[in-house]
Amino acid sequence: MLGSAPSDVSVGALPVDLVPLGGLGEFGLNMMAISCGDTTIVIDAGAMFPEADQPGVDLIVPDLAYLESRRGQVRALVLTHGHEDHIGGVPYVLPHVLGPLYAPPLALALVQPKLEEHDITHGPGLVPIGPNDVVTIGPFTLEFIRVTHSMPDCVAVVIRTPQGVLVHTGDFKVDQTPIDGEAFDLPRFAQLGAEGVLALLCDSTNIDRSGFTGSERDVEVAFEELLTRTEGRLVVATFSSSLHRLQILVDLAAEFDRKVAFIGRGMNENSQIAQRLGRLHVPTGVAIKDSDVPNFPAQEVLCLVTGSQGEPNAALSRIAINDHRYIRLTERDRVVISARAIPGNEKAIGRVLNHLARRGVEVVTESDKHVHVSGHGASEELKLMLSLVRPRYFIPIHGEHRQLARHARVAKVVTSGLPKPTAVLMPLDGDIVRFDGEGGRLFDKAPAGRVLIDSTRVGAVNDEVLRDRRHIAADGVVVPVVAINRQTGEVEGVPELLVRGFVAADAATLLAEGAAMLIGVIRQCGVEERTDPGLMRERIRTEVRRYLRKRTGRRPLVLPVVMEI
Amino acid sequence: MLGSAPSDVSVGALPVDLVPLGGLGEFGLNMMAISCGDTTIVIDAGAMFPEADQPGVDLIVPDLAYLESRRGQVRALVLTHGHEDHIGGVPYVLPHVLGPLYAPPLALALVQPKLEEHDITHGPGLVPIGPNDVVTIGPFTLEFIRVTHSMPDCVAVVIRTPQGVLVHTGDFKVDQTPIDGEAFDLPRFAQLGAEGVLALLCDSTNIDRSGFTGSERDVEVAFEELLTRTEGRLVVATFSSSLHRLQILVDLAAEFDRKVAFIGRGMNENSQIAQRLGRLHVPTGVAIKDSDVPNFPAQEVLCLVTGSQGEPNAALSRIAINDHRYIRLTERDRVVISARAIPGNEKAIGRVLNHLARRGVEVVTESDKHVHVSGHGASEELKLMLSLVRPRYFIPIHGEHRQLARHARVAKVVTSGLPKPTAVLMPLDGDIVRFDGEGGRLFDKAPAGRVLIDSTRVGAVNDEVLRDRRHIAADGVVVPVVAINRQTGEVEGVPELLVRGFVAADAATLLAEGAAMLIGVIRQCGVEERTDPGLMRERIRTEVRRYLRKRTGRRPLVLPVVMEI
Repeated sequence: MLGSAPSDVSVGALPVDLVPLGGLGEFGLNMMAISCGDTTIVIDAGAMFPEADQPGVDLIVPDLAYLESRRGQVRALVLTHGHEDHIGGVPYVLPHVLGPLYAPPLALALVQPKLEEHDITHGPGLVPIGPNDVVTIGPFTLEFIRVTHSMPDCVAVVIRTPQGVLVHTGDFKVDQTPIDGEAFDLPRFAQLGAEGVLALLCDSTNIDRSGFTGSERDVEVAFEELLTRTEGRLVVATFSSSLHRLQILVDLAAEFDRKVAFIGRGMNENSQIAQRLGRLHVPTGVAIKDSDVPNFPAQEVLCLVTGSQGEPNAALSRIAINDHRYIRLTERDRVVISARAIPGNEKAIGRVLNHLARRGVEVVTESDKHVHVSGHGASEELKLMLSLVRPRYFIPIHGEHRQLARHARVAKVVTSGLPKPTAVLMPLDGDIVRFDGEGGRLFDKAPAGRVLIDSTRVGAVNDEVLRDRRHIAADGVVVPVVAINRQTGEVEGVPELLVRGFVAADAATLLAEGAAMLIGVIRQCGVEERTDPGLMRERIRTEVRRYLRKRTGRRPLVLPVVMEI
Repeated sequence: MLGSAPSDVSVGALPVDLVPLGGLGEFGLNMMAISCGDTTIVIDAGAMFPEADQPGVDLIVPDLAYLESRRGQVRALVLTHGHEDHIGGVPYVLPHVLGPLYAPPLALALVQPKLEEHDITHGPGLVPIGPNDVVTIGPFTLEFIRVTHSMPDCVAVVIRTPQGVLVHTGDFKVDQTPIDGEAFDLPRFAQLGAEGVLALLCDSTNIDRSGFTGSERDVEVAFEELLTRTEGRLVVATFSSSLHRLQILVDLAAEFDRKVAFIGRGMNENSQIAQRLGRLHVPTGVAIKDSDVPNFPAQEVLCLVTGSQGEPNAALSRIAINDHRYIRLTERDRVVISARAIPGNEKAIGRVLNHLARRGVEVVTESDKHVHVSGHGASEELKLMLSLVRPRYFIPIHGEHRQLARHARVAKVVTSGLPKPTAVLMPLDGDIVRFDGEGGRLFDKAPAGRVLIDSTRVGAVNDEVLRDRRHIAADGVVVPVVAINRQTGEVEGVPELLVRGFVAADAATLLAEGAAMLIGVIRQCGVEERTDPGLMRERIRTEVRRYLRKRTGRRPLVLPVVMEI
């Protein structure tokens, strides 16, 4: 069956529409619908996290109006791998899907707790797929190809359609010495290229970087040196989904006779899931609980912690202000940020580093030592994909406008020497690309946008609502204004809650009691937290939202103003 | 006289106090007071710009309470060079100084317009100084040493005191092939080291970077290639104070037969001042006015523009949304960001780059080509300074807590092999370091902090007030909330101004008219500007401040909320 697809556009066959619903014009939120006749399939269902200037929401997922318009025809959701920007929207998308969820086992395992949390049991089934598996869904035949990335178990998807073969790379870099030994299937891409590919949809994340990204293994040397040199605890902050990184660190810890503590919720959950699936191997006796850290000599401990982006509530932020339940650092300990700063997070990360410096803790970042390597291919790897696949059409995906534009430009240069140079299409979210007898082109617009998720934990229940921007506007805006003495950390005057479009019975009492509640909350924080406006804003936001939710059932946008006096 | 200073701490002599008033614990705001007996001198008087989460102010300068406490005894202000973080506070500091302002000619020329704007004529005089000049002020004898940096005419300051010799490096890197031929006086630092230095105060900005920063000349190759390859206009955004960079670009433009247009207020002012002083040489016939740009063929134009940090009102931001009076870019033009992103500005810069990508303009940044080189020495250069000067005490200056801490750590390692290892002191703003018969140590606290400057241009008059945080709190908070349709850019509903602690006669009318004013302002903006929340926030902030200032004379903190619907 493989290799039988037409290598050129078919005249007379049903048209095929590519409908990008997220990730083309932004980082995160990756989602692509593909429709032909009465069948739609969806590749990935990503989420993104709000920016600092978008407070009031916890998660953003793509607008699902297009899927609603295809009601009854969405016959599969396919995941390329288990990162949040590819799976975070699954609980919201899956109810629109009549057929199974297909995903590599690790991605499925990472989705599972999300489904449980949302009480979703997907009748049509959760189907694990692996490299070289083939699945037919209506007019589409899917094949999966192993690619390498910063986590194990990632695939590209080949979609054979009546118009020709589509190749969707997912996220990838070309790691030629993968930690788990699962090699990037370059030959298969070359084979497809030889057979003829209608369109290549390729990750654009790192098109700005020259050269070759390099293997996950490249960080080993730096960590060996750090483990040798560090006389106290070594604390490494990284993404809990960077399982190759975790494996390297666990292996080195065992070699250097250190115990490993996974600290922070995501770190705990992900390491457990990965161990269960055999995707993370922790030798017996190496792992210890966070509560056991104080019981071991400092130089025998490696802590793997969440918070590499300076998130105020993550483990590293709490440790930095000496407010973690079990971890108290001293001048002999060392902290490593083994992650890049996601643009917009620089200030928050800087705050954490300054708090650590205040404790005398040495911090090692990417700019000091090779303690991080990207999971996305740089420009030479992206060119390599083009050179192997040699598609008739090229569509850059996964990037902001400027990465897509650059990738488009690079693709033209790379393929200019081909007998039939590749045509480049550059759709953004909502731009429908149609392939039919006339070839491929931007054809129409589909509804696209973002839906904001607001989850307020009231007590133990994770109470969550799906809202579009209009709903949030309708729920009003609350601006808590708090003045804090920057020397003492004391609240000056009385906090006030300014409101707009927020109507509640007995509003005056509600707001006055809210202000009193805030004074109490702030008093309970340590001085270091009280004099850090970033941490205080986050704390006030959380507490005011919880308070209003509990008392009124409303979810206004909460935008705290912290004035240092 | 040189070389006669004691190489060790003097018993019985008057104690000397170093009083850092800014720049030790933050970037910017550099200012150091040095007191002995009844004489105080001040090295530098810097400002810093507010962060994105500190709206409502335009400029921040150090708290001057310490200088007020030394009233009548402050006998000189010395500037090391002409960057804003060293001279931006001069109009506020100079009125506290009884003696002259000493500075290199270029720094003086850059200060002059600020003084005029503030109507300050400094009776005791503005005294130009140069390398090797010696000035005696009470118990202090000052000598200046040529250093290299990203602008011409920079010096380090040697201060001979009754306790020994202090060396204050100012900002520097070791540029061994300076554009202006003015070499870093390494031999003089070595000589001072041989004579014996009590304390070295050294720039810490780039202690995080390994290796050697490299010469300003290092960008020439990249720009030669860009000038060759670019078929349309080449637009380069850089700091207008980076005069070496401007010189390189002007010279290359002349060589490649392009006219040069200086675009944006700072670019115009600084290039004129530098030309007047012979610090920027523009060959006859090369410079053209911004209004002339449309009259020349695109491939014959090089534009030097402000806005490398994504500042919403700077030339590059206006150009990016096609809203500049004279510059309209096409797909054949190319934009270069020849500057680093100051942490916190990444998002704003990213927005500008996406707008440019939308117009099909190719953008080149530091990550693509070597189009920027830092003005601050990396760790090897900072170690070199230590190795030459071999001080008894080392005090890291100019950095956030973590840079200072790291520099302190590096200094211990570098000097550990000396017969008398260097002692490291790490004061932060307001920590008084005393040198006396007992040696050097953290001795006491001086008042230190920040003063916020709020300048509202009402008509032609630049009406400015100096306020501390308490004053700003007292003037209240105004939160304009505007909902904008993200597709059409239309205002949805009626904007509202929420207020706290802002009392005005007839407040209801004032706020209602303010909301109406806002609708008018937003209607006048282009769609691209209206659908960019970052630009809208800045526009709304400016307009509301101006409106309230005009109508009430009050200056509340204005914190716009832009909701995309």
